[in-house]
Amino acid sequence: MNAKKKAVVLVSGGLDSATALAIARDAGFECHALSVDYGQRHESELIAARRVTAALDVPLMILPLDLRTIGGSALTDDIDVPEEETDGIPVTYVPARNTIMLSLAVGYAEVLGADDIFIGVNAVDYSGYPDCRPEFIAAFQAMARLATRAGVEGAPTTIHTPLIDLSKAEIIRKGMALGVDYALTVSCYQADEEGRACGRCDSCRIRRAGFAAAGVEDPTEYAPEPVLP
Amino acid sequence: MNAKKKAVVLVSGGLDSATALAIARDAGFECHALSVDYGQRHESELIAARRVTAALDVPLMILPLDLRTIGGSALTDDIDVPEEETDGIPVTYVPARNTIMLSLAVGYAEVLGADDIFIGVNAVDYSGYPDCRPEFIAAFQAMARLATRAGVEGAPTTIHTPLIDLSKAEIIRKGMALGVDYALTVSCYQADEEGRACGRCDSCRIRRAGFAAAGVEDPTEYAPEPVLP
Repeated sequence: MNAKKKAVVLVSGGLDSATALAIARDAGFECHALSVDYGQRHESELIAARRVTAALDVPLMILPLDLRTIGGSALTDDIDVPEEETDGIPVTYVPARNTIMLSLAVGYAEVLGADDIFIGVNAVDYSGYPDCRPEFIAAFQAMARLATRAGVEGAPTTIHTPLIDLSKAEIIRKGMALGVDYALTVSCYQADEEGRACGRCDSCRIRRAGFAAAGVEDPTEYAPEPVLP
Repeated sequence: MNAKKKAVVLVSGGLDSATALAIARDAGFECHALSVDYGQRHESELIAARRVTAALDVPLMILPLDLRTIGGSALTDDIDVPEEETDGIPVTYVPARNTIMLSLAVGYAEVLGADDIFIGVNAVDYSGYPDCRPEFIAAFQAMARLATRAGVEGAPTTIHTPLIDLSKAEIIRKGMALGVDYALTVSCYQADEEGRACGRCDSCRIRRAGFAAAGVEDPTEYAPEPVLP
């Protein structure tokens, strides 16, 4: 029997990346999860990343990279997370986030001898983020194939985006079929210390609507409504 | 008078990036230096980066990113730096180094509102590194233009590589003409605590030969020869 092919899977602790991880495992890859601790407000994400990977017995590498130093996003900076829909590119967009995450995954893949990288980006619900689009992923893959020793030596990197054209409901149905326990995941941009979701940010709204559209009971633990003074 | 265009310049503290910084300034950019503290063995590099940018009165952002976690290189790992010429891609190659550095520069540029990034890569003397080749840089630029809010909104990123096809002697002559003080720079892969160069690693050999070929006195401070037991 051949050894399994290795893959690096970017895992954030959210619903999408947990599904991408389950898909990569189901496709027969030996998965190595990579999580970037980029100084995000929601540390509960990293706790969720640990839960999600532990449940699948997948090793998790957490790489600290404090993007708060460079600022520029509501997720890493002192900008309020919006609680209503906004037009254009959301302020929760982290500058060059997927470019940076994928670059780190390319480095980790090269060290592990993995030719495959999975990322749970989605162009449907998050169309406001430029680095979630298929043309960005194609250009990144072309660049990665020229960037590394493996690429030069004839083992080109493939960037897998199994969720890119799925709706949130389709992602949830796919994950449920693969046994993903979404109660372990945290999607909220401003979850509280116990990992409870706000129910109001973009990410919460899209997630909640996804469970409803999939006809699946929402396992998310929401924080009690704040009492206004 | 128009405000100067901003540029992010990747600065390592070495000879090449100091020259790239001088070229960017000379071209009229308001320069913002970015140095990545990737857990390299030679901390003297960062001290040199501070000296080089301070001499030109350019702000320096140091971003800590500990690539020792992922390993795989003689510069970040417990692998000996070779002291003789080697074939193929050197073990001092840091996996995906320029991909990661440029990605961070793209993020920083987006926050600053800069459309220009300078990197002192060189395809002549370091031809063993895949991520120093012109085709890699072109692919990276194409990717960066799809990655960011600025790219989407019509202000595409340009990656400048003013040294890419110059010999080390040509780089040194160019830098001298712009007043670069190479005594402030450290190129050695294993400089000692005082920043003194070993004189034996690839980087030292190429640098020393560059000064000789340029007909310029080598200002490098070398460590005394180790006394063998």
